[in-house]
Amino acid sequence: MTVSREIRLKSRPIGSPTADNFDLATVTLPDPGPGEVQVRNSWMTVDPYMRGRMNDVKSYTPPFQIGEALQGGAVGEVIASNDAGFAVGDLVQSFFGWREAFNAPAGAVQKLETHGLPPQAFLGVAGMPGMTAYVGLLRTAALKDGDVVFVSAAAGAVGQIVCQIAKLKGHTVIASAGGAEKAAYLKSLGVDHVIDYKAETDLTAALLRAAPDGIDVYFDNVGGTHLEAALVAARPFARFALCGAISMYNATDMGPGIRGLVQAVGKQIKLEGFIVSTHADMQAAFIADMSAWIAGGKVIWRETIEEGVENAPAAFLKLFSGENLGKMLVKLS
Amino acid sequence: MTVSREIRLKSRPIGSPTADNFDLATVTLPDPGPGEVQVRNSWMTVDPYMRGRMNDVKSYTPPFQIGEALQGGAVGEVIASNDAGFAVGDLVQSFFGWREAFNAPAGAVQKLETHGLPPQAFLGVAGMPGMTAYVGLLRTAALKDGDVVFVSAAAGAVGQIVCQIAKLKGHTVIASAGGAEKAAYLKSLGVDHVIDYKAETDLTAALLRAAPDGIDVYFDNVGGTHLEAALVAARPFARFALCGAISMYNATDMGPGIRGLVQAVGKQIKLEGFIVSTHADMQAAFIADMSAWIAGGKVIWRETIEEGVENAPAAFLKLFSGENLGKMLVKLS
Repeated sequence: MTVSREIRLKSRPIGSPTADNFDLATVTLPDPGPGEVQVRNSWMTVDPYMRGRMNDVKSYTPPFQIGEALQGGAVGEVIASNDAGFAVGDLVQSFFGWREAFNAPAGAVQKLETHGLPPQAFLGVAGMPGMTAYVGLLRTAALKDGDVVFVSAAAGAVGQIVCQIAKLKGHTVIASAGGAEKAAYLKSLGVDHVIDYKAETDLTAALLRAAPDGIDVYFDNVGGTHLEAALVAARPFARFALCGAISMYNATDMGPGIRGLVQAVGKQIKLEGFIVSTHADMQAAFIADMSAWIAGGKVIWRETIEEGVENAPAAFLKLFSGENLGKMLVKLS
Repeated sequence: MTVSREIRLKSRPIGSPTADNFDLATVTLPDPGPGEVQVRNSWMTVDPYMRGRMNDVKSYTPPFQIGEALQGGAVGEVIASNDAGFAVGDLVQSFFGWREAFNAPAGAVQKLETHGLPPQAFLGVAGMPGMTAYVGLLRTAALKDGDVVFVSAAAGAVGQIVCQIAKLKGHTVIASAGGAEKAAYLKSLGVDHVIDYKAETDLTAALLRAAPDGIDVYFDNVGGTHLEAALVAARPFARFALCGAISMYNATDMGPGIRGLVQAVGKQIKLEGFIVSTHADMQAAFIADMSAWIAGGKVIWRETIEEGVENAPAAFLKLFSGENLGKMLVKLS
């Protein structure tokens, strides 16, 4: 019998989530049944998209249920197995985050080949966030030679990878983030122009100074005034990969709207939303490319780490105040 | 010597254009010089996109110049020729609208093959507006079997063709227009659901009633609340062909913005602006298809006609108050 603590959704957030929306519960796991494994998580991820699953609305993933443990990516180690395919000590990846340990059917966890990377990299640079950067830039935005690339939330889990893929492919990159520490990190990645949006009163003017001839690709993690600025700066046939809009996730109404979208007509701009899981066909190419880039020192990454499942809600909340540099992770064991 | 009256841009409109922004001038044309033709226009077109050219801003076409005759599509007849390629009586198409007659290099006019259609059809159903419908629906929105199609300004020059192409290809079509006469016309075209937006207080609710399972394609001629409603009603992987935004053309600021664009992420919506001239490679296919559809009675059209070049500004202004049913034209001779 294994004792595990887990985070449950206590109530649905209205507007910005708070600690009160979460419960810490303790459960006792029986031995794994036939065909099951028992896993102790070592790392879990918190990601902005999880905010959407806290609402009771139909979306591309079903909503979290009140009173139940939240879900999300995790890596851990098999500590008991009742399935021939798994042995104690196997490193596995699953969607059973937000808990210290769990029992699950063997088919619901995946053995993790680390390719020499730390296991938590598969929650970041080599996992969903990294692949989001890869898919959004290379497929949705259809990056091509000579493109000038603008990316917002550039020092976040996805943004830091977008910057580096665009740079290693030879592009001019303009990156927006909030605060001097993030700006310095982005400079260290070789980004051509960093916009510290918290230090700017007119984001459009700042973008036009950084990109006087305009932008061809905008990788949008933010929405709001960043998206408006990108519409103004866009060159003809610009492509916008709409990855997220963290400025809107906690909105309780439809917000002020995006002004200037009419420019998409005359400039023939394409704006396209995408979800990484739709592009699973790119997984093998992503892992091959990313492994090589990491091995070659062309892609690095930062992590912001909270410790203990009891601090997972706090880690999640920090995403919305921008307190993470790079990938936000929770270390569980 | 030929006397011709023409409409010149007197001043750039600020906000909604008025009659005061236009001048009626009379010019005397010399005989055509070597390699020139002289043409008497029989029809000219007024189109919403011309509003953009009245502003002094860089766009996909250069701005109209103050004191000079406006430009736009026209059809007419050669009345004098100093070029071996043209004879008096030849029917020609040109961009020298807004004037009764003109001299031009032979290379600047095109002989018009009418395929049995009235010549002014080449300013509408068989011309730029028809091809705009064709390109936007078939290429930009990539219409595919089973798509539910929503189109705004559906009783206008472009919209009426969008409705019919979508219907002849077997789609469910939801069309929005303002007023009972337009609604009745759209019903007569076989449109499945007509929304008289002037009779609705909540356009989104009206669209959701018409399309309870959502829409796959939105052909946007309007922007504003129509675009917001389409975002709400969009099904996953919906494609929006952004053709125009007549609600915004006279705006003096960036307007209230489009709310709910964040839905494009989760629903993986693609919004793409397009300009018909970019897709000239589809011209031959368009003419072949459209000729066959018209000959087969599958595409019909309406026109709203003003008479005399002196009434061209009034015809243009009526586009913005929605006083045209179908294609707005000016008969010149």
